[in-house]
Amino acid sequence: MKLRMIAATAAATIAWTSPVAAENAATLDLMPVPRSTELGAGAYIVGADFSVAVEGAGATDRLRAGVGRMLRRLSDHTSLFFQPATFLDLSARDGVSMTVSAARGGAVELGEDESYTLTVTAEGVRLEAVTDIGALRGLQTLLQLVTLDERGITVPAVEITDAPRFPWRGLMIDSSRHFMPVDVVKRNLDGMAAVKLNVMHWHLADDQGFRVECLAFPKLHQMGSDGRYYTRHQIREVIAFAAERGIRVMPEFDLPGHATSWVVGYPELASQPGPYEIERGWGIFKPTVDPTREETYQFLDTFFGEMAELFDDDFLHIGGDENTGEHWNDNAEIREFMEENGYADTHELQQYFSQRMQTILEGHGKRMVGWDEILQPELPTSIVIQSWRGREALYEAAGRGYSGILSNGYYIDLIQPTDFHYLNDPLPEDAPISAEAAKRVLGGEATMWAEFVNPETVDSRIWPRTAAIAERFWSPRHVRDVDDMYRRLDRVSLRLEGLGLQHERNQRMMLRRLCQCRDVDALEVFLGTVEPVKIYNRGQQRKHTSFSPLTRAVDAARPDASPARRFRQAIDGLIDGGFHDTDLLEEARSWLRLWQENHAALEEIFRSSPALSEVESLSRDVSEISLSGLAALEILADGETASRDWLRPRLDRLRAAKEPRGQLELMIVEPVKRLLCVAVGEKGSDEPGCRADESMAEAAPSHRPRCLGLACRGRYRGSGL
Amino acid sequence: MKLRMIAATAAATIAWTSPVAAENAATLDLMPVPRSTELGAGAYIVGADFSVAVEGAGATDRLRAGVGRMLRRLSDHTSLFFQPATFLDLSARDGVSMTVSAARGGAVELGEDESYTLTVTAEGVRLEAVTDIGALRGLQTLLQLVTLDERGITVPAVEITDAPRFPWRGLMIDSSRHFMPVDVVKRNLDGMAAVKLNVMHWHLADDQGFRVECLAFPKLHQMGSDGRYYTRHQIREVIAFAAERGIRVMPEFDLPGHATSWVVGYPELASQPGPYEIERGWGIFKPTVDPTREETYQFLDTFFGEMAELFDDDFLHIGGDENTGEHWNDNAEIREFMEENGYADTHELQQYFSQRMQTILEGHGKRMVGWDEILQPELPTSIVIQSWRGREALYEAAGRGYSGILSNGYYIDLIQPTDFHYLNDPLPEDAPISAEAAKRVLGGEATMWAEFVNPETVDSRIWPRTAAIAERFWSPRHVRDVDDMYRRLDRVSLRLEGLGLQHERNQRMMLRRLCQCRDVDALEVFLGTVEPVKIYNRGQQRKHTSFSPLTRAVDAARPDASPARRFRQAIDGLIDGGFHDTDLLEEARSWLRLWQENHAALEEIFRSSPALSEVESLSRDVSEISLSGLAALEILADGETASRDWLRPRLDRLRAAKEPRGQLELMIVEPVKRLLCVAVGEKGSDEPGCRADESMAEAAPSHRPRCLGLACRGRYRGSGL
Repeated sequence: MKLRMIAATAAATIAWTSPVAAENAATLDLMPVPRSTELGAGAYIVGADFSVAVEGAGATDRLRAGVGRMLRRLSDHTSLFFQPATFLDLSARDGVSMTVSAARGGAVELGEDESYTLTVTAEGVRLEAVTDIGALRGLQTLLQLVTLDERGITVPAVEITDAPRFPWRGLMIDSSRHFMPVDVVKRNLDGMAAVKLNVMHWHLADDQGFRVECLAFPKLHQMGSDGRYYTRHQIREVIAFAAERGIRVMPEFDLPGHATSWVVGYPELASQPGPYEIERGWGIFKPTVDPTREETYQFLDTFFGEMAELFDDDFLHIGGDENTGEHWNDNAEIREFMEENGYADTHELQQYFSQRMQTILEGHGKRMVGWDEILQPELPTSIVIQSWRGREALYEAAGRGYSGILSNGYYIDLIQPTDFHYLNDPLPEDAPISAEAAKRVLGGEATMWAEFVNPETVDSRIWPRTAAIAERFWSPRHVRDVDDMYRRLDRVSLRLEGLGLQHERNQRMMLRRLCQCRDVDALEVFLGTVEPVKIYNRGQQRKHTSFSPLTRAVDAARPDASPARRFRQAIDGLIDGGFHDTDLLEEARSWLRLWQENHAALEEIFRSSPALSEVESLSRDVSEISLSGLAALEILADGETASRDWLRPRLDRLRAAKEPRGQLELMIVEPVKRLLCVAVGEKGSDEPGCRADESMAEAAPSHRPRCLGLACRGRYRGSGL
Repeated sequence: MKLRMIAATAAATIAWTSPVAAENAATLDLMPVPRSTELGAGAYIVGADFSVAVEGAGATDRLRAGVGRMLRRLSDHTSLFFQPATFLDLSARDGVSMTVSAARGGAVELGEDESYTLTVTAEGVRLEAVTDIGALRGLQTLLQLVTLDERGITVPAVEITDAPRFPWRGLMIDSSRHFMPVDVVKRNLDGMAAVKLNVMHWHLADDQGFRVECLAFPKLHQMGSDGRYYTRHQIREVIAFAAERGIRVMPEFDLPGHATSWVVGYPELASQPGPYEIERGWGIFKPTVDPTREETYQFLDTFFGEMAELFDDDFLHIGGDENTGEHWNDNAEIREFMEENGYADTHELQQYFSQRMQTILEGHGKRMVGWDEILQPELPTSIVIQSWRGREALYEAAGRGYSGILSNGYYIDLIQPTDFHYLNDPLPEDAPISAEAAKRVLGGEATMWAEFVNPETVDSRIWPRTAAIAERFWSPRHVRDVDDMYRRLDRVSLRLEGLGLQHERNQRMMLRRLCQCRDVDALEVFLGTVEPVKIYNRGQQRKHTSFSPLTRAVDAARPDASPARRFRQAIDGLIDGGFHDTDLLEEARSWLRLWQENHAALEEIFRSSPALSEVESLSRDVSEISLSGLAALEILADGETASRDWLRPRLDRLRAAKEPRGQLELMIVEPVKRLLCVAVGEKGSDEPGCRADESMAEAAPSHRPRCLGLACRGRYRGSGL
């Protein structure tokens, strides 16, 4: 118990009080890192008399509201009591602490100017931008600069010149698989604004739910949603909320596949007679609209006309992915249509469908967006391809004149480590693409597919990781120091909490519910050693439906378990440095002791918590593995070597511990294995189980698990693996 | 550090693993306690095959939806994977685990039947009710009965017959002083449903904000709300959400005082020329509508006509409180009107206004509700009085034929201890009221005035305390065991978390923001010793406005600090028992050691956290006081006595420590004082500072602080003091 506290405190110290390394000075605590940051001398001291003036032709209501939110957060963060006048009077006048200036009101559309310059001196703050939207981006930077420490409340003197690298920086939220109420969407929009994302791609219809009120065809939402849909007023409320933050809202209505929820109310749209029910499982399903009947296009023309009016963005996403074609092949009339028109296969039939869709959307003033599958030579280059397949597909399309955005490698539902997403560049320096075509790579989107998240857990999958992806889309290509990213991410995560995001605070709540107790420290320590299984393994290891509970240990666990990552770093450092670094040695020991003793602290809880029994043996393994690790560490610290006989049973034990339980996997197996192998000396590298090709690695960036069965088809493969 | 952990664990053990005392068996973990509970033998075992059928003419959509929510929560709580059919098929059939039967659909109105019987045997569960609303109440009882422990997931065999004591069981939410977005209201409605409250009284207009969209007079919400108002669609959404849970929504539009936000857009309504601005401060203000002009009543007739259509409840609250009358007296035409009509004072003029209001509301089919001030002989007995003044006023009104509800003693914004509210009975056994008149005491309402709460903190003021008040309104009068209430409240609080309420989870988040760190254990220990200042002291000790930050230590602190309360109990037990109980002795020691060592753990955090500096000296006092307490404890444990010279400087130190800082006060002063006084032996009771009339007591139920200045006028006095 005592050791646990010490180690936990050690970890906290590591996280928080280490001075910013000299080479990181230019990144401060900023995320995303600005294009250019020049540190000056001294700092501006923030006091209760802080005041702001907004000026210029871009002093819009939106900018004033943004300044109001900035002041609110500044006051909340510092506990300073600003005067009412601070909030109520933003007119230009002498003696204000900060001036915000924008030359014009911006448009919430692709390519709008988002640049700004921010100048802080001991005398005051000046923020300048071409548009009010650029000024909003600069306000977020200012908030991240505010520093509370021994010196009080300060902003470092700095000159920042900033603009985004890519104009399309998105987060896709799937409201179909699990419905996400308006407040969930809003708090995530606040999070997006904080890290300068500018597109919310809203996945609103899929097999498991049709989530928008439709006036023309009310059975869509009435029969396709279990009553869980957004009213038109709520949709407008969300769009206005996003626009206030300079964020576009692009809706997606996935067709011709992923269409079960459409055809529950309108089976006449379908390629097979029906009747249909809302899909309750996860995967790829057959219901598909019939692309051969003119009535289908009349329906869709009316439908998209209504949606084009409701959603004011220039773009509308029609999905287009993962149509199995089975319901088409099984329909004699559709086969006949294909024959008549000379379509060799269902893929060509879908091309026909996409063309018709493009015509409809163009008629309603929208540019069509779709997943890779929609791409075909007959479509105009005004469409945009969203690629789950990968960069190559994107570059090829760009070469042919099509704009595109990358989502391959940004599937945040797959529980891959943050640095994997972070280092995934839409346009790496050596990208095989012409300079001209490269301009058509507009950016990218993180995708939050919602099979395994609900309103309680979704924030913990999106945040803080999406902040690192946002940096990839905004910051210069050369910004890719993983350690510095993790350092800043830890701080940004706490800042994001202040916006109402629940990624940090819900974990202990979920643990309290699991154990029905208040002292969840030991459970938290346990969760520091595990992560949910990666890629599509969760659905494979246990059958889930839309009714399955998302309240288990696997749901409380986080992607990118921070203690396990820090332990891996310590072990890497020790192996590289020959076990002479006493600080690293003590850190590794502290973690291992903490974990070794943890199971004893949990035994009582496991005994009385049926909901935790599925992970009890994992907890026991944590203790055993840590004991092995401690033994190896002492051998190595003493400069001794272990025998092969010592090694083998321990390696066997480790191998067994790799087996996931409760869809959780241990993240400390590989570093302990490395310790053990090193402990037997040079001969260790030849030991069965120690050879380089026998990694027990958890899904680290270098790890490429095989694609398994059904779950690898179609967009489901967007993991970038 | 080590001791801190031990003590914290000890506390957790006290809270969670103590077996239910035999005399508490009948209350189980239920809150509110049912009218009758008969425990049977054995238990029903809940498995993944759990299923429910709904039957009877009361098998409404509302009841089916309620069963769906119950199943969702049951699955979430147990982590059981129910089949989709469990949720989708609620038809009566053989072999279901549970039958829910209601004879008719209920009406969401005062006096509807809410009774139910719940029978659990080893074979299954049967819930029967007259109305679907009664069945909803029974579903909440079932959820509270589900037990997870060594035996697995079970429901004890039991026969419960239940019905509410009072028909009006409310929570008032003030959305004017701080706007509460729809999701805040909804999650609190879920909390209300969980503890069987049935009225949300919605305080929608006051000096600081007019919060409802108004079609007829749009400048009300446009100019009176800073853009923070509920649209008509949102209002309807909330009403529907409440009705789904069998909860009435009664709106309040406070008049003729508290009217600043009305007259910002419509100064012609006011009694003085204006112009007016939205009020940013807290207190009682002068702006008042002019009751002498017919145009006022034309305006109000149109306004209430629109609101009467929007809000479907039979009742509408017009406030009526705290009109200073100054703006009336200062207006020559109003004075003339009073003279012409023979009104002796502004009180009589307000009586005239109330009569006119009653006529208007009656014309729109509503029964008028108002605070004590509206009561007058000219009004029909169809109106309802909400009493902040006290029971006597209520009984007097009831004697004259008026129905009433009690809010005096349920002002949960005043940070009084839960047991104070809990023991405050609207109709104690010895109430001086006839049986006939007693029937007109309809129940009560907890009032969450929002000067010092925002969406982030409001849950922590409402919950879990309001669950105890809900029990007062629902359960039989004789249910008033304070210890058992606190025991159950601790469990209910964790259950309420699962509904999305943030009273538990936000505290550590707020501490992380204050220290900008992750290890907040020591801050949490500190908060266990303090509470926000009581009654109206917060506003008196520091000037607040609607822009003031609510992110300080005082906001993270909780009413009814549980560690301090437990420590007081331990000290009481030791003093009563003569310091022979080694368990109590060890508990008291553990707390004191924990607190004594805590400041050292915080020094580093205080150094680097400017937002915490205002409470640093409080933390130091905790250490010093605890050291004194430990010394006294050792003297007493050894059967020795201390000298007066030993006592005096320590008492002086305690007295100084009573001074609040950062609007927080120490809750461990009084028990330590008692220890010290006892330590000097019998002569202690005569010592200055030890005498019974020199209590240093924190606001305990017996504590009656004086009513101070402005803050004690009008409804502001509803503290029951």
